[in-house]
Amino acid sequence: VAAEAPDQAAEKPAGGAAAFETLLVTTEDNITTICLNRPTKKNAITVEMYNEIIKALELAGKDDSVITVLTGSGDFYCSGNDLNNFTKIPEGGIEKMAKDSGELLSQLGQSPEGCSSYTFPKMMGLAKASEMLLFNKKLTATEACERGLVTEVFPDSSFQTEVWTRLKAYGKLPRNSLALSKQLVRGVEKERLHAVNDQEVERLVERWLSDECMNAIMSFFQAKAKL
Amino acid sequence: VAAEAPDQAAEKPAGGAAAFETLLVTTEDNITTICLNRPTKKNAITVEMYNEIIKALELAGKDDSVITVLTGSGDFYCSGNDLNNFTKIPEGGIEKMAKDSGELLSQLGQSPEGCSSYTFPKMMGLAKASEMLLFNKKLTATEACERGLVTEVFPDSSFQTEVWTRLKAYGKLPRNSLALSKQLVRGVEKERLHAVNDQEVERLVERWLSDECMNAIMSFFQAKAKL
Amino acid sequence: VAAEAPDQAAEKPAGGAAAFETLLVTTEDNITTICLNRPTKKNAITVEMYNEIIKALELAGKDDSVITVLTGSGDFYCSGNDLNNFTKIPEGGIEKMAKDSGELLSQLGQSPEGCSSYTFPKMMGLAKASEMLLFNKKLTATEACERGLVTEVFPDSSFQTEVWTRLKAYGKLPRNSLALSKQLVRGVEKERLHAVNDQEVERLVERWLSDECMNAIMSFFQAKAKL
Repeated sequence: VAAEAPDQAAEKPAGGAAAFETLLVTTEDNITTICLNRPTKKNAITVEMYNEIIKALELAGKDDSVITVLTGSGDFYCSGNDLNNFTKIPEGGIEKMAKDSGELLSQLGQSPEGCSSYTFPKMMGLAKASEMLLFNKKLTATEACERGLVTEVFPDSSFQTEVWTRLKAYGKLPRNSLALSKQLVRGVEKERLHAVNDQEVERLVERWLSDECMNAIMSFFQAKAKL
Repeated sequence: VAAEAPDQAAEKPAGGAAAFETLLVTTEDNITTICLNRPTKKNAITVEMYNEIIKALELAGKDDSVITVLTGSGDFYCSGNDLNNFTKIPEGGIEKMAKDSGELLSQLGQSPEGCSSYTFPKMMGLAKASEMLLFNKKLTATEACERGLVTEVFPDSSFQTEVWTRLKAYGKLPRNSLALSKQLVRGVEKERLHAVNDQEVERLVERWLSDECMNAIMSFFQAKAKL
Repeated sequence: VAAEAPDQAAEKPAGGAAAFETLLVTTEDNITTICLNRPTKKNAITVEMYNEIIKALELAGKDDSVITVLTGSGDFYCSGNDLNNFTKIPEGGIEKMAKDSGELLSQLGQSPEGCSSYTFPKMMGLAKASEMLLFNKKLTATEACERGLVTEVFPDSSFQTEVWTRLKAYGKLPRNSLALSKQLVRGVEKERLHAVNDQEVERLVERWLSDECMNAIMSFFQAKAKL
């Protein structure tokens, strides 16, 4: 689920004790909504935000929520990692780069993350996965749907209505059955996904510290500067 | 292959010795057709029928058949398990529920079966698989084709002609080559599929015995009764 | 990448020392092009050609190439194995068969190869994979794209322009990052793919030596002869 959170009058903050600096967390009708709340930064994720997301998910896992929605405030879901979190980038470059977050991974000398090196080929075949992961193919929403990355695409005007109609129906499903079914569907791959993630992270750390990555980032800035 | 068996004059019963109570089993042109034969119950599957299907498949595996077709008599392929087979459902509810077999699994507090928790994510990605297995998304025939669950979709008027044209061609393919190729394609996953199936069945048994499942079934009946 | 190599004036042969009998190998803009060069035989692959392809790939892996393109000279990418490489086929039949290379595998009593018994079901689901691997379904280019076998389809008139626009952009990507990302994407499956390939090859050898295969080939020739 992407784009801004719905304007729902009856929303109430979740867990009186839990206060969040970077998130808006509300619960209603068995649905917990975690809303990234740095709209002026297009919801770029900081280390603090990562920690708060983990905390909010743990709370939602313990209360009566049937569904948890992750979304962003403002007109942008999320622009990726806030690059101010990363060291080893020359000071002058960070501001420029932050403006262009979402920039393509391999163009910056990066490598796949989030288990995409495993899940993308599984989902769409090696040819189309390579097109995205190695050659930076950008997809339209319709193409993302065709490749199995999202389930449905709506026009902006009806997005909130269509999504929340579905979410409210899902929120009424038997909670334990849903949780156990999800465990069945996901459990088979859990060990594999952790191993894949470890490998990807290890590779990313190497990449960030490499001269090639640094040069790619520098020449990216220079190209931008010329525009 | 779904829908009714073709009206083929030259059909003959398979294996003189094998008599079936709940199936029509015929063999012609190297093709064995196993037809579920309880049209008044929309071919709901009983325990007896399961045993006869196993027997019929074993026979077809031993004779000269190249292809085995599973279909149903009447205008309905199969409405799923005959719920009279299952205990632990209050007596009053069974008749109502049988009328609505095919009712959605997780709505009734159930969990995925038939290895779908493994094969669906593999085939269509986790997002679209979850939509079906957790949130009861019903597909049109065209959508089922797009997600890889079926290979082709025909209008009702030409269905039998189109399908049997293909089947008759398949029935002429070299038998051993086909069997060995099928073993290659399926063998890789056989062990995994058995493990997945064991897990799914274990989970389903828990589900059927849970209060949540019982309550979901009861509220399903009450909703129906109000209509 | 398929079809003929581009008419590029600035191309130069790769590695002065490496001479190839059956291939044209050129390198330009970090892109090595390996072009199968038996246009009069529709680039049917001989044992010598296999050895030269291996050698050319090893050279491209060691030099500065970022991308390696495999294509064919003339208007045909490749018609498959040159059947003159295979013994156990009666002398009279080889010429006829060579003309029809690309003939369907299971119709000739063969079985899947090139890891397709594993990669096809993974990519498109078991139903559609079986349709191709067991029942010889031929795909249009558009269908191949929908099933994930290719990433894009172009009309013949713009094919070279479209493909080379992409390749030249890919050739400018950071080399190490690309290689490491490719290793990530492919590494997970490498062991599995070798095991699958071993099984497929073993099965193919059995098939080629079987009476069924021989009979299927013979009846294929007879059917052709009657046309």
